[in-house]
Amino acid sequence: MTARAVVLVSGGLDSATCLAIARSEGYECHALSLAYGQRHTAELDAAAHVATALGAVEHRVMTVDLAAFGGSALTDPAIAVPELPGEGVPVTYVPARNTVFLSFALAWSEVLGAHDIFIGVNAVDYSGYPDCRPEYIAAFERMANLATRAATEALEPLFIRTPLIQLSKADIIRQGRTLGVDYSITVSCYQADDQGRACGGCDACRLRQAGFIAAGIPDPTRYR
Amino acid sequence: MTARAVVLVSGGLDSATCLAIARSEGYECHALSLAYGQRHTAELDAAAHVATALGAVEHRVMTVDLAAFGGSALTDPAIAVPELPGEGVPVTYVPARNTVFLSFALAWSEVLGAHDIFIGVNAVDYSGYPDCRPEYIAAFERMANLATRAATEALEPLFIRTPLIQLSKADIIRQGRTLGVDYSITVSCYQADDQGRACGGCDACRLRQAGFIAAGIPDPTRYR
Repeated sequence: MTARAVVLVSGGLDSATCLAIARSEGYECHALSLAYGQRHTAELDAAAHVATALGAVEHRVMTVDLAAFGGSALTDPAIAVPELPGEGVPVTYVPARNTVFLSFALAWSEVLGAHDIFIGVNAVDYSGYPDCRPEYIAAFERMANLATRAATEALEPLFIRTPLIQLSKADIIRQGRTLGVDYSITVSCYQADDQGRACGGCDACRLRQAGFIAAGIPDPTRYR
Repeated sequence: MTARAVVLVSGGLDSATCLAIARSEGYECHALSLAYGQRHTAELDAAAHVATALGAVEHRVMTVDLAAFGGSALTDPAIAVPELPGEGVPVTYVPARNTVFLSFALAWSEVLGAHDIFIGVNAVDYSGYPDCRPEYIAAFERMANLATRAATEALEPLFIRTPLIQLSKADIIRQGRTLGVDYSITVSCYQADDQGRACGGCDACRLRQAGFIAAGIPDPTRYR
């Protein structure tokens, strides 16, 4: 039987590359997205498109109202998305978002019998998010191996796979191109419009633009 | 300012006692419940009642469809709730439930500026759930302290507080009585009816009954 993996797919460039890598390693990929109260749904449309285009066997969207807690520019209309990066953790940080994402992936992986969860976090161009750091991922993996039925029954351990964590944005783009990722269907912008067209000015757009330039690959992003 | 705490409240006996303990320590308590696709809503009604009766300043219910993943008698109608405990992890285990619960509590605590999350897990009469063990809680706490903005900014650490973890069910009931908990409003049964009346036969009912007997306290549970 082909080994199964849960792959977190946001609709962005990084997670699309991550899915392509998981597929290239031969996994049967179950794609998971979270509708967490983000400002636009274009990234969820992109996630569905990415999952299909890159050969995931299924794509599920879990809905959860993280916006009810507030505290982030990505879920709270009262907080503006900044044009320029500031000091420390940015206001676009969503409290505990990756922990919530990974918790759902953990639940699904246990039901599927999957032992690998892929997440496209990146510690290089990571924009200052605490839950993208290698030490955070290692701690989540350790916790996950104590949380599940599989853990108590001494079955195979679970791995949180982060193939992009030490890559630059340019390296990610180069690797994705090699694997045939069509980046024109991905949406990275924090405030894309309904058609998935990017603003070109937010932190996520700037990192993405710089990545294509550094990779020497034409930027296929659709700007408005 | 009074220190804030997030308290996970399920509507059952343990979490009600846990809330009473948090209040007795002087915390401003923000109660959180999860509607995760459990078979009945009586426990959520009980959670709201418990939160009010024990002086939480607010009570929020996060809805998340863990039933979409299946794999548990508590969320999957195709799996029967057993009358007698079996070997190993029971079928009433919900994959990664406490990890999902605690992840939401983590998100809310960060927004509230709370440094304590109370959860009424118990390692004595814990029915074989992996995510009730002390080593799991310790691993979650360690992960949580790497996951948040507070962690990266070297502010106060976050504590996962488990005041019941080493208590017997009888000890929990005795402590709750001392703190004035009215257990008639709590619902522990895995298959309570719409009025919150217990079946008296499931694993949770049996543990609860035995606890009242061992504590020498009349059982106020409403059975159908």
